[in-house]
Amino acid sequence: MLEQIEKLAILGTGLLGSSIGLALKDRGYKGRIVGTSRTRDTAEMSMQMQAIDEVADNVSLAVAGANMIIVAVPLGAFESAFRAIADAKAGYAIVTDVGSTKQTVVRSAREILPDPTRFVGSHPMAGREQQGPRAAKSDLFQGKPCIITPEADSHEGAVKAVEELWQGVGSRLIRMTAEQHDRDAAVISHLPHAAAVMLIRVASKLGGWDLASTGFRDTTRLASSNPPMRADIMTANKEALIHAMDALREELDAVETMLKADNNIAVLQWLREAAETRDGWLGR
Amino acid sequence: MLEQIEKLAILGTGLLGSSIGLALKDRGYKGRIVGTSRTRDTAEMSMQMQAIDEVADNVSLAVAGANMIIVAVPLGAFESAFRAIADAKAGYAIVTDVGSTKQTVVRSAREILPDPTRFVGSHPMAGREQQGPRAAKSDLFQGKPCIITPEADSHEGAVKAVEELWQGVGSRLIRMTAEQHDRDAAVISHLPHAAAVMLIRVASKLGGWDLASTGFRDTTRLASSNPPMRADIMTANKEALIHAMDALREELDAVETMLKADNNIAVLQWLREAAETRDGWLGR
Repeated sequence: MLEQIEKLAILGTGLLGSSIGLALKDRGYKGRIVGTSRTRDTAEMSMQMQAIDEVADNVSLAVAGANMIIVAVPLGAFESAFRAIADAKAGYAIVTDVGSTKQTVVRSAREILPDPTRFVGSHPMAGREQQGPRAAKSDLFQGKPCIITPEADSHEGAVKAVEELWQGVGSRLIRMTAEQHDRDAAVISHLPHAAAVMLIRVASKLGGWDLASTGFRDTTRLASSNPPMRADIMTANKEALIHAMDALREELDAVETMLKADNNIAVLQWLREAAETRDGWLGR
Repeated sequence: MLEQIEKLAILGTGLLGSSIGLALKDRGYKGRIVGTSRTRDTAEMSMQMQAIDEVADNVSLAVAGANMIIVAVPLGAFESAFRAIADAKAGYAIVTDVGSTKQTVVRSAREILPDPTRFVGSHPMAGREQQGPRAAKSDLFQGKPCIITPEADSHEGAVKAVEELWQGVGSRLIRMTAEQHDRDAAVISHLPHAAAVMLIRVASKLGGWDLASTGFRDTTRLASSNPPMRADIMTANKEALIHAMDALREELDAVETMLKADNNIAVLQWLREAAETRDGWLGR
């Protein structure tokens, strides 16, 4: 696996960055993994967990001589990570990332990186509420979808290497455009997160906590995920998210109208379609 | 436990009715449990699972001589269950229920039952997606809240017996008015269910299923729950639910305005408050 990648640099050794290191080593990756992090402790912890082989003091040292660079920093730090890669003149390295949105990342890569054809955007659909290297697991990506978003001019070898990387950590690869990714992620990931937040905020305002049980806990689980990370995602993908929010508002208006009109048959149909759709999805 | 209840009648031997039987027997209840169900197979299955001791052909036979009656039928069938109890002249029996809304149930009990002071409404906050006696478990209620909603004129002995029943199956008792229950349940249970349905319907319309992973699965879990049961609940509690839906719409409008104005600080604050609220709830 990844035979030609002798040195792999991981920028950002948090949950995702460290889990990639653990997963690769677990599956016999032979190259050297160098990690760096804004806070040195985070990279040290990642090395203690044997997710990386070496801690680099900064991005320049991390990417020097690297054949592949994985950008696993928070979305708000991508631009400076790309600039540091450009400044380090790591022009031949294949670059990929784990960012939760793709259009802003791809745009920024094309503007800043010395050879944007060697950049291939990725988004592994895996996470946990816990953050940081301590939460990392070698099977975090196992069986989970990973979206890759090559552009028309992406270097073929770079695409192949990035595909090998994600297959190597156990992901199920899906290729799509960055635009499609962001539209779909808004519906399947960013809107459900926003809805979980809204449900907590409504309960904050109207009360009722004594009745809360497992249903409420599961439906609102995403509201506990890292606020700064989520704020970055919502901002980066705001157009697609607003579009999905408008569709949510339409559903809200529709069911409220049915209830006000005592149209029980319509309410039942509204519920049935959703239950069938969800059960069909789970069954496939 | 429940020493004075020599005969206990369970009307409706589905998930909840059968789980009550299993839980009571598991904890050494000595009386006789007689069950009846609209479909005889359901009651037979419940007896095979040893949740009840005896199958009665109809409500009259089930409640004859019973000291306590538990109404565990779907919300839409309460009125006819209460009528059958009234017709059976089971005037001295204590009556309780497991209905997911309380105001309509209490109103109907007061109108129909021969001695409404012996009726005490209950709502055990426990459930599973699977329905029917096969899904029943003796620990279904263990540690879960159970709301009871006695009225000002409720018979003291009846309240005590119903409390003993729920403590006997392991529930954590909470007393409140039927009105308070319905308001709280709208926020904590009925709105989250409706939100899960909306998220599935938005995905149905806008797509994105390839990206769906555990976050989407958990947030939408409630959308798989029984549609006719849920339609009954939404209709019975429509005023409180519409009030909660309006609060959800306000949150939706607020965050959309923040995003459109690129007000990242407000978005971050919006997320932080919710994450802190949820984590505070989980921690208590």
